[in-house]
Amino acid sequence: MAEEAGIRPGELRIDLPASFDAGLYFIGRIRTPFKSRSECPKNTAESEAIGTIELDQRFAAGLEDVGPYSHLWLVYWMHQARRDLVRQVPAHLGRPRGTFALRSPVRPNPIAIAAVELVGVAGTILTVRKIDCVDGTPLIDIKPYFASTDSFPNAKRPG
Amino acid sequence: MAEEAGIRPGELRIDLPASFDAGLYFIGRIRTPFKSRSECPKNTAESEAIGTIELDQRFAAGLEDVGPYSHLWLVYWMHQARRDLVRQVPAHLGRPRGTFALRSPVRPNPIAIAAVELVGVAGTILTVRKIDCVDGTPLIDIKPYFASTDSFPNAKRPG
Repeated sequence: MAEEAGIRPGELRIDLPASFDAGLYFIGRIRTPFKSRSECPKNTAESEAIGTIELDQRFAAGLEDVGPYSHLWLVYWMHQARRDLVRQVPAHLGRPRGTFALRSPVRPNPIAIAAVELVGVAGTILTVRKIDCVDGTPLIDIKPYFASTDSFPNAKRPG
Repeated sequence: MAEEAGIRPGELRIDLPASFDAGLYFIGRIRTPFKSRSECPKNTAESEAIGTIELDQRFAAGLEDVGPYSHLWLVYWMHQARRDLVRQVPAHLGRPRGTFALRSPVRPNPIAIAAVELVGVAGTILTVRKIDCVDGTPLIDIKPYFASTDSFPNAKRPG
């Protein structure tokens, strides 16, 4: 019941499904200046930190043609996050909110998406700016950022 | 060798790792007007189509507080895509490009991210606009869209 003990008043835990429906490969690691979750910036907007992506050699050819993009999406696995809370009380918010209304690492599938600035590509190493994750985070995908499909500067959010 | 036969000149296939590193739960399904991949729009920017997200009842509380957002990220699993090409020749491009420089469904982890407009929430059903995926696509996450971290209208891409 160690997990139960970690729940804040107002949070809601569920029983997760008995088995997985699909499997992920970790394709590399993200190296950052942040050695623990408590050191991480709140989000990429508050970070100018430089990180490096170490892609596994197996996938090296996948980086061809990535260089000309100014921004990339990193898709990564938040391996330290629990998966069983559907309602959470983030410390910065102080009140409950549904998991799908939050970018919290805690979610049924702890996948993060982070838009970063591409600084450079050298072999299987990418250097990026605006990184906010903990050092050693497993990488699961890299995608080019397309302003045409991804940029909504006027998107609204509650206060 | 059926997969080998499906490779275009210039494409590069790799041997994938022998085992998975993490497991995903499918948390719902995306219902769209597109019954096959050939019917799908090229991307969300070219779609005004309405789709519905059927979230599994188990995760219902996770949708609390989602209503006020104008845009959401859908994270979904492109279950029809092969995973072993690191260099591809997209039909619309006609020349090879590295997988991580493409938004193609074919990638080591066939996860898509799609920014959609939220039309409404009713129980465990979300209605969204600008959907481009095939009917029945498995959902793996929903995230709020934050202009502060996600919107880069001046992001550059190669021609």
